[in-house]
Amino acid sequence: MAQFNSIEEILEKYIPKEELQKVHRGLYGFDIQDPSHYLKFDPKVKDLADKLKLEVKSFRFPALAEELRKPRIVRIGAIQNSIVEPTDAPIRAQRDSLIKKISSYIAVAADCGVNVLCMQETWNMPFAFCTREKHPWTQFAESAEDGPTTQAMRQLAGRYNMVIVSPILERDESHGDTVWNTAVVISNTGKVIGKTRKNHIPRVGDFNESTYYMESELGHPVFDTQFGRIAVNICYGRHHPQNWLMYGLNGAEIVFNPSATVDSLSEAFWPIEARNAAIANNYYSVAINRVGTENFAHEFTSGDGRSAHHDFGHFYGSSYVTAPNGARSPGLSRVSDGLLVVEADLNLCRQVKDQWGFRMTQRLDLYAESLAKAVKPDFQPQIIAEK
Amino acid sequence: MAQFNSIEEILEKYIPKEELQKVHRGLYGFDIQDPSHYLKFDPKVKDLADKLKLEVKSFRFPALAEELRKPRIVRIGAIQNSIVEPTDAPIRAQRDSLIKKISSYIAVAADCGVNVLCMQETWNMPFAFCTREKHPWTQFAESAEDGPTTQAMRQLAGRYNMVIVSPILERDESHGDTVWNTAVVISNTGKVIGKTRKNHIPRVGDFNESTYYMESELGHPVFDTQFGRIAVNICYGRHHPQNWLMYGLNGAEIVFNPSATVDSLSEAFWPIEARNAAIANNYYSVAINRVGTENFAHEFTSGDGRSAHHDFGHFYGSSYVTAPNGARSPGLSRVSDGLLVVEADLNLCRQVKDQWGFRMTQRLDLYAESLAKAVKPDFQPQIIAEK
Repeated sequence: MAQFNSIEEILEKYIPKEELQKVHRGLYGFDIQDPSHYLKFDPKVKDLADKLKLEVKSFRFPALAEELRKPRIVRIGAIQNSIVEPTDAPIRAQRDSLIKKISSYIAVAADCGVNVLCMQETWNMPFAFCTREKHPWTQFAESAEDGPTTQAMRQLAGRYNMVIVSPILERDESHGDTVWNTAVVISNTGKVIGKTRKNHIPRVGDFNESTYYMESELGHPVFDTQFGRIAVNICYGRHHPQNWLMYGLNGAEIVFNPSATVDSLSEAFWPIEARNAAIANNYYSVAINRVGTENFAHEFTSGDGRSAHHDFGHFYGSSYVTAPNGARSPGLSRVSDGLLVVEADLNLCRQVKDQWGFRMTQRLDLYAESLAKAVKPDFQPQIIAEK
Repeated sequence: MAQFNSIEEILEKYIPKEELQKVHRGLYGFDIQDPSHYLKFDPKVKDLADKLKLEVKSFRFPALAEELRKPRIVRIGAIQNSIVEPTDAPIRAQRDSLIKKISSYIAVAADCGVNVLCMQETWNMPFAFCTREKHPWTQFAESAEDGPTTQAMRQLAGRYNMVIVSPILERDESHGDTVWNTAVVISNTGKVIGKTRKNHIPRVGDFNESTYYMESELGHPVFDTQFGRIAVNICYGRHHPQNWLMYGLNGAEIVFNPSATVDSLSEAFWPIEARNAAIANNYYSVAINRVGTENFAHEFTSGDGRSAHHDFGHFYGSSYVTAPNGARSPGLSRVSDGLLVVEADLNLCRQVKDQWGFRMTQRLDLYAESLAKAVKPDFQPQIIAEK
């Protein structure tokens, strides 16, 4: 099937306005046609975006006014992108062309008033892990604290007064040159606040990432920034509700999910998992996926009986944001680079917690005990058979 | 907004076939127009269903053929229904009219070859908990083992060789006449295999159920039946991913979610939560919701500033089944009684487990430890601030 831009576009093309309202309420929890849900940017944003061929979409989630807390309005940005140079170009050219392109997108994000921004998983390289080759790809790995990508992002963060979450392949020289799948969290002052790593590593078809790095030993850190408490659940971690839960229990108000995933595999899951996490934990979730098809010089296999191939498939973009009340924004395109800007009042997190009471009714003591039993070698599942 | 039948119907009415394929693949994980996804029933099914004004929908999920296990094909049934008598009719008349109506639907299910069937939450009574009145509603509570509803369902289960999950309001005379929100699991031999109770109780607006019953102390039992290992996650428990998780860890292949929920509150969550549970735990999930608007004699309030009212809102049906690979069936109507019959190969559960490896990569030891810490009074969330 030929690639298409988005489901939203098809719905809007064919369904009359009044009926579309019902469909949107069902699919997004909102009448997304209501103009109050969109932000107005300076005209220069459109000019610049058109020049860069960057899709820019906006959305706004309302919250209640409170008497004792001021609104805590932040603009959340998500960038999805394709690679620039072919995968057989010199490593430095591949990396630097991506840093250059994303830097131009971050300038647009700044013009849109973005306060806290995240890019897709290992955004400064092709998603080469499908090849299972160590050379040349591990050359993309760099220090989280002061590698060239972090240095470039620190400069932009300070310049634009913007918190930037930069997911990269990390080389940890202090711990035996190990490689990690890491997100660097950079303050709007330009300093690195800290880093977090991928907690769950896939062993699925072309996702041969366990060849490259192990599961994080850094826990579920939440970063206290000027624009809210944020956390990063990297890619395959979105399949694990307990992972999302722990970021919530540690106080996250926004959880980014930088990903790289292809249409043949996961597209049925994509609108579900990050959204379910926002519902269950009453925070904003931001699902970000890579775009495009990446070709590699050497063929590789998927362990699924298909012939060897040179590309992993189509990374379908479709990045979106869900609010703590389960309503979601429209998605970015399935095929092109994009910037999604969502205005959110962080006060909504606690408002929805109070409305639904999930934390209060969560019975974590029961689950702490049940899981402790379930991991024991002599665990006996609770099964009742007819007598 | 006037009530409408379903989003599916709107999509099919306006979107051309080729485009609809893309929308369906995005929304359901399948081209649901493919005729191989539907079951053919004896013509008498349609006649009977028309006479009863019962919507009957079918769906079929394919699985791989294995060499060492035969396919384990079961037909799963889900019934959603409105009440029959007004809520001020005698209690016995209300209950018996529902038993009569549902018995006629179960006869249709038998003609459709259903092996294992579930009704909505407290299906044999109006959802009167919004009133906060004890009298007369607790009169609907009955013994799970040999109350009149269980007796009627045991007879049908034996007659039709069908496992029946019957969610009722339970009166437990052995434990101080306590009231519980319970599902009785009846074998196809007509015997009660056991019961399970609601693990998480809402305190949300009109959902004042904590007035009536406490959280279950029966754990997360899975019932080993001739047609697969089944479990029941009652209503509000669907908001808690850990609840879904424990049914999976105890070996469930089908988890029913009998519910009662209204459009103003939860419709944005409905297509997400049960589906996410099927994805995360690789079992079939069956989400079943009540239908219609129920009027009560005495007015009640929601604790949300609105005026007192006599009805809770519209229960929007929309029952659906998700497969272990995240693909889902179309839903039943938002407005009318319905029977959904889904043919499933239980072997798909393990096939998807092997494909995705979620259990293997789940790190339950990490979460057992993290949750044990999180419930302690002196728990300190893992928060990293700029130095």
